[in-house]
Amino acid sequence: MSVAFCCTHFLLAQSPDVLKIRQYRQANEHTILSEFVSFLKLPNIVGDSVGIHKNATFIMEAMKKRGIANVQLLVPASNKTVPAVYGEVITPGATQTIIFYAHYDGQPVNAAQWAKGLSPFEPQLLSNSLEQNGTIIDFPTADKVFDPQWRIYGRSASDDKAGVMAILNAYDAIVKSGMKLTVNIKFFFEGEEEKGSDFLHEILQQYKNLLQSDLWLICDGPVHQSGKKQVVFGVRGDAHVEVTVYGSKRPLHSGHYGNWAPNPAMMLVELLASMKDENGRVTIKDFYADVIPLSEMEKKALEAVPPVDEQMKNELGFRKREMKDHDLAQAIGLPSLNINGMNSANVGKNASNVIPTTATVVLDLRLVAGNDWKKQQQRVVEHIKSQGYYVTTAEPTDEERSKYDKIAKITLSNGYNAQKTSMDLPIAKQVIAAVQSTTTESVVLLPTAGGSLPLFLFEQYLKAKTISVPIANHDNNQHAENENIRLLNFWNGIETMAALMMMK
Amino acid sequence: MSVAFCCTHFLLAQSPDVLKIRQYRQANEHTILSEFVSFLKLPNIVGDSVGIHKNATFIMEAMKKRGIANVQLLVPASNKTVPAVYGEVITPGATQTIIFYAHYDGQPVNAAQWAKGLSPFEPQLLSNSLEQNGTIIDFPTADKVFDPQWRIYGRSASDDKAGVMAILNAYDAIVKSGMKLTVNIKFFFEGEEEKGSDFLHEILQQYKNLLQSDLWLICDGPVHQSGKKQVVFGVRGDAHVEVTVYGSKRPLHSGHYGNWAPNPAMMLVELLASMKDENGRVTIKDFYADVIPLSEMEKKALEAVPPVDEQMKNELGFRKREMKDHDLAQAIGLPSLNINGMNSANVGKNASNVIPTTATVVLDLRLVAGNDWKKQQQRVVEHIKSQGYYVTTAEPTDEERSKYDKIAKITLSNGYNAQKTSMDLPIAKQVIAAVQSTTTESVVLLPTAGGSLPLFLFEQYLKAKTISVPIANHDNNQHAENENIRLLNFWNGIETMAALMMMK
Repeated sequence: MSVAFCCTHFLLAQSPDVLKIRQYRQANEHTILSEFVSFLKLPNIVGDSVGIHKNATFIMEAMKKRGIANVQLLVPASNKTVPAVYGEVITPGATQTIIFYAHYDGQPVNAAQWAKGLSPFEPQLLSNSLEQNGTIIDFPTADKVFDPQWRIYGRSASDDKAGVMAILNAYDAIVKSGMKLTVNIKFFFEGEEEKGSDFLHEILQQYKNLLQSDLWLICDGPVHQSGKKQVVFGVRGDAHVEVTVYGSKRPLHSGHYGNWAPNPAMMLVELLASMKDENGRVTIKDFYADVIPLSEMEKKALEAVPPVDEQMKNELGFRKREMKDHDLAQAIGLPSLNINGMNSANVGKNASNVIPTTATVVLDLRLVAGNDWKKQQQRVVEHIKSQGYYVTTAEPTDEERSKYDKIAKITLSNGYNAQKTSMDLPIAKQVIAAVQSTTTESVVLLPTAGGSLPLFLFEQYLKAKTISVPIANHDNNQHAENENIRLLNFWNGIETMAALMMMK
Repeated sequence: MSVAFCCTHFLLAQSPDVLKIRQYRQANEHTILSEFVSFLKLPNIVGDSVGIHKNATFIMEAMKKRGIANVQLLVPASNKTVPAVYGEVITPGATQTIIFYAHYDGQPVNAAQWAKGLSPFEPQLLSNSLEQNGTIIDFPTADKVFDPQWRIYGRSASDDKAGVMAILNAYDAIVKSGMKLTVNIKFFFEGEEEKGSDFLHEILQQYKNLLQSDLWLICDGPVHQSGKKQVVFGVRGDAHVEVTVYGSKRPLHSGHYGNWAPNPAMMLVELLASMKDENGRVTIKDFYADVIPLSEMEKKALEAVPPVDEQMKNELGFRKREMKDHDLAQAIGLPSLNINGMNSANVGKNASNVIPTTATVVLDLRLVAGNDWKKQQQRVVEHIKSQGYYVTTAEPTDEERSKYDKIAKITLSNGYNAQKTSMDLPIAKQVIAAVQSTTTESVVLLPTAGGSLPLFLFEQYLKAKTISVPIANHDNNQHAENENIRLLNFWNGIETMAALMMMK
């Protein structure tokens, strides 16, 4: 075989090693899930230093119990509340070092939004997903087995405590099954991913020597929507632009002044409509100009991605995708412009007969390899200017109001660039082969994920490569209420992580 | 002189009658304002039946004290909490009957939004408007005079307790100055105008015989922005259309699905942008088709309206009006389409990286003579259909979602048509002449106001004519926090109402 993405052309099989890992897991399901549930019971809201420290302590204990060496907190000098948890296992004779990354902090929660009987930090077992009429069931007694379709509901069940636990149990399974690592492994569990990893760069700099490796293996996010395992070689970058346009200084009666005074909501509507054509393509000048074309290998990988458009459209309840000529895998390979939110005065019961004074939109720019986030923001600014707007960064003064027909206040927040690792690298091929060895289905290879992570930091501070191997079910409600992990995904995740620790 | 709107061509003078009214007022300012302030202290929030009844009782007492006959509550059979207050004065030999209309209910209040030291129902005297750095001052002792630039701040100070008090004091001034009415007068003070006059039609039907007249004289709203008195012959009708468009059933991560999943905010933006051209004209088919052209007299009146565009643009802080070819007086003579409010997901600190599930807009349609409100709403619906939307009145079902590319839920709320009285009628000329007799400035004659009142009810149920003669300052903050009346406007209002009671 040449490279793994053509693996649909021959018989796929699971390796004997993987079957041993599975046997170990099957024999230890109750213990594994008991520890996982205890972990999920610890509130881990990002930014809550007390909760974060309890979680870090829990992980350190779990690591020490497994005989992992050099367990410690990596603490950024300027913020001691967001430690990463580190540990390592040196393998005699190994020439490669892989750092397994997951994060243990979770998104903020609104318990009131969770379904009846569920609560973010009181994990529950369900017979299926809520959408498929799953109901709460008791955890089975030690003599009973777990149905792999069951799910555990709780904050971070999938994002990303499942990652932490899959990695630790994979190591356990290898050791306890009498198998051997093929590489040195290091563990790095981050504690502030959900806030944007503001201090990650400090940790990488401070612990530069400790964190040398051949690859960071990122275990975060969901498998492919088709249910197949996937290896993801990049992430999109991200940047935001908030725009507010202005009408009258005070709300005007829409009868007395309607269609005489400028309506900022209508102004914003016209401005935003000018940013896309009828096929969903962004019309801002040079928006797609810097995109580095896909390599031949990436193109072939994309062609092999199982089509999920119809499945996802049915699941999500719409019929027409935004970009006429691009399916999901193609669309996320392009820079994007999305409205995250838009507001002007009120709708619903608070609506009143006014001409609003302002209208605001938050635009989300996703970036791919080749894009520079500041340049991309600037293109949006230039486009707004080209539509006749005077652009400012503050509330317009009376003088500005008297001088310009159209005024936009633009707030450019911090962003970061995309990151991509070449599929052609020898270590990339090792990763693909390892994941493929765990499944009889072809592994999906994605040049980039649609989402964003600050993976550029690893390159910038450590010159390190990154590849993501996610494990959660795609319908895991990540970041929202009713977050969950399907047990089968967790079990498969353990096998995947173990195969990576024994990569050939 | 032929008709009054050409009165700029000759010397304007105030009539001797008006000067007598003024003398009376000057001699009684303290008494008049003391009663007005007591009235303003009574909370009158529309829908609060207890407050409304206290106000009605206060007015009845004030009428009886003045010797007005047949004072009574007119109570709609199906809602006893919203009585109108009625009274009458029959003038021997008079052949005409004028009903003076004002309303005593007020808009809801949010005391926290009022400026420091001000409170909706604790009226205060200020040395000027807040915008012109007015400060709170004590009411002067009985030996001191009131500066006419002073203002009283409180809910309904201008809208519309000033109307009630100007009418009652005008009658008082005539009687106490030994002058005579020339017409029979009836008083009609409504108690639910700010909620849309839902039961007014019942009152008009039940008390049909009592409410016969040659004219309803509506004393509500502000004088012209130029500061000149105005007579207004019509109001625009009003109707609303709320539109919600749909994307995915659940919020999607704007990274994972950005620019693949449809973004309802962007869909709404494109839909709304299709409704207007670059000159602010509505592009919905036949939107302006039914407008009855202005009569020659109305055209001349419009030409004579003092230009206020520059003044108002400065005051309101913008430079470019919405419709390129229409000044304020012209713009409000057309049917309008305004965005009252627009929302999709969140902006500001609650913004998140989502593709919203829905986007909603509330459209306000103002209507002029010739428009039918249901037909106008239907034109908006047809336009939305013409943009490829499937239109429904409920949340879309899964079946509908799978069947249609674009789905809009449309809610059509109740509206009403415009109302206009001809400027050519003899009684219209009498009104114009009466108002003109009170001022050395030319009176502004407006074919229609921009705002809406359900004046069609008077025609529908009583076959009655209506003409509006407003008295408040245009910067009175009607409906909002810091509502106020400038004393000069109140004094002038008394003179105007008196002149109308003595119209020739």
